[in-house]
Amino acid sequence: MTMTDAQVRAALQSLPIELPSWGFGNAGTRFGVFPETGAARDVFEKIEDAALVHRLTGACPTIALHIPWDLPPAGMDWAALAAFAQEQGIRLGAINPNLFQEREYMLGSVCHPDPAVRRKAAAHLVECAEIAGIVGSQQVVVWLADGTNYPGQDDIRARRGRLKETLAEGYAALTPGVEMLVEYKMFEPGFYTTDLPDWGTAYTICQHLGPQAKVLVDTGHHAQGTNIEFIVATLLDEKRLGGFHFNDRRYADDDLIVGSANPFQLFLIFHELINGNDGRSAAPVSYMLDQSHSIEPKVEAMVLSVLNVQTAYAKALLVDRAALAERQAAGDVLGAHTILRDAYETDVRPLLAASREELGRPADPLCVLRGDAAFQESRRTREATPARAGGGGLGS
Amino acid sequence: MTMTDAQVRAALQSLPIELPSWGFGNAGTRFGVFPETGAARDVFEKIEDAALVHRLTGACPTIALHIPWDLPPAGMDWAALAAFAQEQGIRLGAINPNLFQEREYMLGSVCHPDPAVRRKAAAHLVECAEIAGIVGSQQVVVWLADGTNYPGQDDIRARRGRLKETLAEGYAALTPGVEMLVEYKMFEPGFYTTDLPDWGTAYTICQHLGPQAKVLVDTGHHAQGTNIEFIVATLLDEKRLGGFHFNDRRYADDDLIVGSANPFQLFLIFHELINGNDGRSAAPVSYMLDQSHSIEPKVEAMVLSVLNVQTAYAKALLVDRAALAERQAAGDVLGAHTILRDAYETDVRPLLAASREELGRPADPLCVLRGDAAFQESRRTREATPARAGGGGLGS
Amino acid sequence: MTMTDAQVRAALQSLPIELPSWGFGNAGTRFGVFPETGAARDVFEKIEDAALVHRLTGACPTIALHIPWDLPPAGMDWAALAAFAQEQGIRLGAINPNLFQEREYMLGSVCHPDPAVRRKAAAHLVECAEIAGIVGSQQVVVWLADGTNYPGQDDIRARRGRLKETLAEGYAALTPGVEMLVEYKMFEPGFYTTDLPDWGTAYTICQHLGPQAKVLVDTGHHAQGTNIEFIVATLLDEKRLGGFHFNDRRYADDDLIVGSANPFQLFLIFHELINGNDGRSAAPVSYMLDQSHSIEPKVEAMVLSVLNVQTAYAKALLVDRAALAERQAAGDVLGAHTILRDAYETDVRPLLAASREELGRPADPLCVLRGDAAFQESRRTREATPARAGGGGLGS
Amino acid sequence: MTMTDAQVRAALQSLPIELPSWGFGNAGTRFGVFPETGAARDVFEKIEDAALVHRLTGACPTIALHIPWDLPPAGMDWAALAAFAQEQGIRLGAINPNLFQEREYMLGSVCHPDPAVRRKAAAHLVECAEIAGIVGSQQVVVWLADGTNYPGQDDIRARRGRLKETLAEGYAALTPGVEMLVEYKMFEPGFYTTDLPDWGTAYTICQHLGPQAKVLVDTGHHAQGTNIEFIVATLLDEKRLGGFHFNDRRYADDDLIVGSANPFQLFLIFHELINGNDGRSAAPVSYMLDQSHSIEPKVEAMVLSVLNVQTAYAKALLVDRAALAERQAAGDVLGAHTILRDAYETDVRPLLAASREELGRPADPLCVLRGDAAFQESRRTREATPARAGGGGLGS
Repeated sequence: MTMTDAQVRAALQSLPIELPSWGFGNAGTRFGVFPETGAARDVFEKIEDAALVHRLTGACPTIALHIPWDLPPAGMDWAALAAFAQEQGIRLGAINPNLFQEREYMLGSVCHPDPAVRRKAAAHLVECAEIAGIVGSQQVVVWLADGTNYPGQDDIRARRGRLKETLAEGYAALTPGVEMLVEYKMFEPGFYTTDLPDWGTAYTICQHLGPQAKVLVDTGHHAQGTNIEFIVATLLDEKRLGGFHFNDRRYADDDLIVGSANPFQLFLIFHELINGNDGRSAAPVSYMLDQSHSIEPKVEAMVLSVLNVQTAYAKALLVDRAALAERQAAGDVLGAHTILRDAYETDVRPLLAASREELGRPADPLCVLRGDAAFQESRRTREATPARAGGGGLGS
Repeated sequence: MTMTDAQVRAALQSLPIELPSWGFGNAGTRFGVFPETGAARDVFEKIEDAALVHRLTGACPTIALHIPWDLPPAGMDWAALAAFAQEQGIRLGAINPNLFQEREYMLGSVCHPDPAVRRKAAAHLVECAEIAGIVGSQQVVVWLADGTNYPGQDDIRARRGRLKETLAEGYAALTPGVEMLVEYKMFEPGFYTTDLPDWGTAYTICQHLGPQAKVLVDTGHHAQGTNIEFIVATLLDEKRLGGFHFNDRRYADDDLIVGSANPFQLFLIFHELINGNDGRSAAPVSYMLDQSHSIEPKVEAMVLSVLNVQTAYAKALLVDRAALAERQAAGDVLGAHTILRDAYETDVRPLLAASREELGRPADPLCVLRGDAAFQESRRTREATPARAGGGGLGS
Repeated sequence: MTMTDAQVRAALQSLPIELPSWGFGNAGTRFGVFPETGAARDVFEKIEDAALVHRLTGACPTIALHIPWDLPPAGMDWAALAAFAQEQGIRLGAINPNLFQEREYMLGSVCHPDPAVRRKAAAHLVECAEIAGIVGSQQVVVWLADGTNYPGQDDIRARRGRLKETLAEGYAALTPGVEMLVEYKMFEPGFYTTDLPDWGTAYTICQHLGPQAKVLVDTGHHAQGTNIEFIVATLLDEKRLGGFHFNDRRYADDDLIVGSANPFQLFLIFHELINGNDGRSAAPVSYMLDQSHSIEPKVEAMVLSVLNVQTAYAKALLVDRAALAERQAAGDVLGAHTILRDAYETDVRPLLAASREELGRPADPLCVLRGDAAFQESRRTREATPARAGGGGLGS
Repeated sequence: MTMTDAQVRAALQSLPIELPSWGFGNAGTRFGVFPETGAARDVFEKIEDAALVHRLTGACPTIALHIPWDLPPAGMDWAALAAFAQEQGIRLGAINPNLFQEREYMLGSVCHPDPAVRRKAAAHLVECAEIAGIVGSQQVVVWLADGTNYPGQDDIRARRGRLKETLAEGYAALTPGVEMLVEYKMFEPGFYTTDLPDWGTAYTICQHLGPQAKVLVDTGHHAQGTNIEFIVATLLDEKRLGGFHFNDRRYADDDLIVGSANPFQLFLIFHELINGNDGRSAAPVSYMLDQSHSIEPKVEAMVLSVLNVQTAYAKALLVDRAALAERQAAGDVLGAHTILRDAYETDVRPLLAASREELGRPADPLCVLRGDAAFQESRRTREATPARAGGGGLGS
């Protein structure tokens, strides 16, 4: 009693995957940045590139923005930027405050020992909440670089108090219906403590903030060996799962293409997302890519990321859930396990191609992109002309 | 403005460290057990050995019991066992249910797919809650071996539902004033999932159970690189820290002597315990050793463990908290860090010796134990005589 | 220019996978053993079960033995045991000394501080070398439980000297053509040091021993995040790869079914085994399962393990190596990566079934096993009758 | 039979700790750089700052250089730069090639698939070998950023071939008596593979290169849970330990102050360095700091690092080695362990202060630095004036 191919295609077509503006610009490691010829240099080019990914995949109707990197240039308002996106075929998505790049934030932002710095951080959160209201975004995503490098550097408990207090100011400014997604990360850039190191901390902070606050799971932000799908199942059960920042990693947080290092894990995450929902589609939370590409061609990397997410989702949809439940109830360890594994071993590439063609998109978007002369030309044009407006940087 | 030596001694003398009955019996790894000549073979000998550690250190007034390993033998009631302990100079402490050794528990206990197994587990929890009431214990400590080894083996979310439901039955049987301490562990013996893998999960379960449920931190149960003192600070802030199972590890869960692998970490944990309390003593939670010794002489190992806990605590008491707070507020990264480090570098062995002598205990208890002819004789006597009653096993 | 299905089937049919005798007996964790009804109780039943796996898969012509667990019973010689195996349709394989279970080995075997214990260990190595000669085995596999739990417990450097010296005695007793495979393991049962913790240590020891010594890679014996396929490529380049102990793990060493936790990693290992050989078949080293099953039905677990190995191998054989090399030379990061990924996404279940049927084996061996009435009956018979001869235990 | 305080002081005074030029300039994480007021901006200011650390500690007679960051400015030769250093009271030390910052190196340097890039890398190695000869440096330290981010991106084995071949060109250019120190690192900036990921790989490369090649251990470059002191003991035994890059980390490679995250580990490393030498002083290898400071005042951080190294060394010198050896031979697990631990618990701050005063240096160099008006003034002067010559960047 598995889903039919048509049902799987319909489910796939209903899963929007949000693209991160910062994934289209040049990024690197702490050892340097290797710029890509023709990479997006401003918010307009990021929107253009995101729209291209949507045209190729049919799966990415929105683009997440990073503030202040993606502010409309002087003299332009948000409505005009939103209109620009709409012309390109996509919409503006989650608003991501930046609380780490300015010099005042060296020792933290919302947790900083100096109240003046916290005021500045709170004001930025409020500004982002307002932007979300203006552009019709459904989420403000809070990732913090706050933390410490040395035992004793600051008071762990006092920082927690500041965290609750300062985030609450941003929360209070949310338009009804907009969620604050609270992201956690085990380490980096703080190496002794991170003020939101794990899902449990983010969860308790959300409880303090209120019902519009939910936990955001970044798949690259856990300790080695952590069972991420277990966390997903738990947060769904507690009704506090806000969504995902997808990427992959073998070690550290490296923003690799989601599903490139451990595709089985991504499949298991989607298995829980379906299992914790209605058994026929993934839970209605936010699905966002969060990657920054240091050696990969950025548009290609985004297309491949979308394909990897869809591959994992399609396989998870194919699990024979009735048979699985029956084997689980019987305590049949390997009988149950092999049902899951059988779905994973299925080659879903034809199914994905058919789904895309049904939407009028290319069966093999990566191949089309690589052969697209207009795309290549656009890269050369960018190199030869000045950018329209600023904004660079790097995700978390 | 640090504490005086007299104040530190007084604080040390007020920190009771509970000993685990199972740490005195023979234990091993999955590759086998190397029995120690004269190791405790029954609950009486465990009590005798624990009492000896208390006589040597003055720090261990109670012994934790594992049920059914430490049930009084047929024909003896709990009052008689408690009286036996009292004669030896100690009291009965936390009650630890065993939900992993019987054959029915192969696929779990409180989370087992079969309701009959869950009924059995619930009944054992109720039994332990009742024992705690009878013997005047303040805690029932719940550590579960529940988990799965393979993706798909069981339904993660369904198991969580069973966990909440079954633990609630044990919780309902608690005598007022007795706490249920919910322990978490990242892995082992389940290797794909553990039903209580992290503090966040234990925390949400405690919220479901009620105010008498608190989280127990076992220092050996975290992913590599986890900042345990941060968790301690967070749980204190949320008023859900129930206490500790102390031990140490470099990799995996190995029940090594607490403070033997990373003494600095233990110091930092105590720093948070003081910081999250009144700045002059560690928070009033349960401090319990949880070790099982495969190659170490068991009584020696316990004495050394107590010394290591006291060493870390004494150093943390010596931190100049006023100066520290001042440096932290000033954003002086290394100034603050070195204040902590200075306390850590202090040699507190003379202070600990003085504290023990003040209590009429030996200055160097390990040396006394090693030279104690009566102790050596007691080992030989045990070898030569039959044990009084059963009970062996291994902690978590 | 990929291999044809017929070529892939031929390659699959040429990869022998050795079964471990200890994987058929009851095993467990340090928390206990849950015996399986009808699990093998002696060397004969282990051979019978291994032969059944070979009949079902056509891939497992040999069984590894653990000494002394698998010694022929009193009054029987090795020739008779070998003949018993041959009647069943398989041969005796690698000889695995046991240097950890006896009481003398509490502080080590070949590295023990006491020369008398080292003599005993050396004698056992010599005995195993002789057995290998007698039964025509090609390998003596040395895994050591040697290590320490506490800093200072023993002298790291002195232990290394003893290791070289004592292993050399066993090495000297090898029949020409027989290899000594030196296994490494990051931790457990030693938790401070392991005397052979990593491939580098094993490699230097092999250099000291001589050309018949090679490194054995156990896929479950590495630190989190280790790139095992890189080690495989390196050892192949240095001509010191002796073979594998296959299993899987998420955390710690848990002897899970190979390929069950991270099937992509197993594929990548086989990619290097082919790449470091002739590009059309895996390097001619020893492929051995090393698993012990605590909750899985043992014969099922072995069959599934064989299927997982073959799945990974078949997918790796399907990599378009010419196209891959071309993309790599061009510095095309994602073009090269997706070639590998395409092979991985292929559903090779039909190909594996066809390969088995070509050999006269069932297309779906797991299904056949589960429906096999004679198999079920044999389990019941074993329960009802006494075993023929001893031998239990647990792998590394 | 421990060393006397005078002997310990003499040993401390004989351990030179090299300072890294890059540790004095501004550095950061991939999220940005927070510049320090007055941080060194060119090679001259780095030399001035290193000389100040030497004046304060008496322990740092040399400064390591990074090429091309620390090239003498146009019109100045190496002799003049060396003379500048000498005026300041220190000498030029190890030469560190930079093979990661130029655009050609995006996919590697000595392992790059394009031979032209490898030629460039080889030429830089030769240049550095020549510089080492000119300035009288004893070491060329090779750390590579070479690696890949995706399975299949490049051929692991082919890269190894290129690694051996290209490094050999640099090796051939070494002046007699100069060592090539080959550094390894588990990950970063490559996240799928690192071409020199572990000591075993570095060791085999050194064997291929020749006797002047030795392994350099960076204390922050290992997998979680790795026993670094074991590696030190092994490399000493094989006569291939070249030296150290000291720093500390809790997670990832973060270049924290050595000994700040786990001081016990640093002590254990020094214990092996003494144990593998003559039992009375650390092995005569290179001791170099390799840190880059993102939030710490740089000169303070270096002084504190030197103190931490000396603290660990002094404690290790105080181990009662005769008693330890006796307890180890007796198999006395805890007796041996506590001997080590006793040395660690000793407060060596007075001994270090006395040692410094014996050399005419301040007893508390950190305190002196913080109160030094001339130092503060020099920071302000730097801010107000242009730098003399370029050079920025970040260590590995």
